[in-house]
Amino acid sequence: MPGSGRRPGPTRTRAAVLRAARARFAEHGFAGTTIRAVAEAAGVTPALVHHFFGGKDRLFAEAMRLPLDPEAVVATVVQGPREQAGERVVRLFLRLWSTPEAAQAFLAVLRSVATTERAATMLRDFLEEAVLARVTDALGVSRLAATAMSAHLVGLAVLRHVVRVEPLASAPDEEVVALVGPVVQAYLGGGPP
Amino acid sequence: MPGSGRRPGPTRTRAAVLRAARARFAEHGFAGTTIRAVAEAAGVTPALVHHFFGGKDRLFAEAMRLPLDPEAVVATVVQGPREQAGERVVRLFLRLWSTPEAAQAFLAVLRSVATTERAATMLRDFLEEAVLARVTDALGVSRLAATAMSAHLVGLAVLRHVVRVEPLASAPDEEVVALVGPVVQAYLGGGPP
Repeated sequence: MPGSGRRPGPTRTRAAVLRAARARFAEHGFAGTTIRAVAEAAGVTPALVHHFFGGKDRLFAEAMRLPLDPEAVVATVVQGPREQAGERVVRLFLRLWSTPEAAQAFLAVLRSVATTERAATMLRDFLEEAVLARVTDALGVSRLAATAMSAHLVGLAVLRHVVRVEPLASAPDEEVVALVGPVVQAYLGGGPP
Repeated sequence: MPGSGRRPGPTRTRAAVLRAARARFAEHGFAGTTIRAVAEAAGVTPALVHHFFGGKDRLFAEAMRLPLDPEAVVATVVQGPREQAGERVVRLFLRLWSTPEAAQAFLAVLRSVATTERAATMLRDFLEEAVLARVTDALGVSRLAATAMSAHLVGLAVLRHVVRVEPLASAPDEEVVALVGPVVQAYLGGGPP
């Protein structure tokens, strides 16, 4: 489906819609955001947003997926020495969240999850099916350990980027990696330290 | 200031206001809650709420403090063998959050923090001044380690009680303690595992 005339191509349009969606979700949460408002902010028609994403649920899920790409997580853990997998995962997440866009996306997710049961259900489904199943399969760790590791990473993002508790908020990535990496490793390396 | 006639005593009134505040904050977040609404729900005058708590900020902080009593945390860590402090802390938090009231209070905090900068600032101040300073002083661990440990506990609450990711959401307390306790211990025991 090539772009026609002055209209931007589908890839750029899709990216523009996701960018607008992320901004709206961050500002208004899941319940307060409409397809119409996202379309308006992106400069496209609501029909086009529906065409790309089906509905608000899938739009939210797509917008949400970017700062938490399950394939990237698994690839990061698997590639390289197993005993440094914890450090690699922590480094990956710190980098993923370090851009303003990603931090905004994370905040949007947190706000929606804390505000609507539906968003919590969506995130739960996403985490269970897309993230934890892959980590568990790829690494042979227990599902509970994979979930507890995720909990640590989520908590890091909450305190570092949302609540911004010091010294965690301002610590350089590598200082956090050096501290938290070996702790996360305990969940990946086949049991607690 | 004894209770007069049919009016309940100040302690019970104060508790009723906090209960009402917790319910309102959970339902409407920090920004959407007024002293007037809390007073109405508690069956008292707005003036009385102001008398007890000064303003909405302090009311929020007081309501928020209950599921995270810094003195209890420090006492739990200090009392008993140091090498099991991680397990004791995790067990304490799992128990604290296991009541519906505490889970509601945690959700209210999360929602407010994700919604208003002011609430994030309040929680940051509370964590830095009331919680982390005490833990750091009492245990001689680094401030960054105490913050990272808090991040893990916060993340556990988010995934267990808010997003309710399985198997973490339904796992018995002691199963979580056995898995997460030794990991948290790494932050308390003088360095990573």
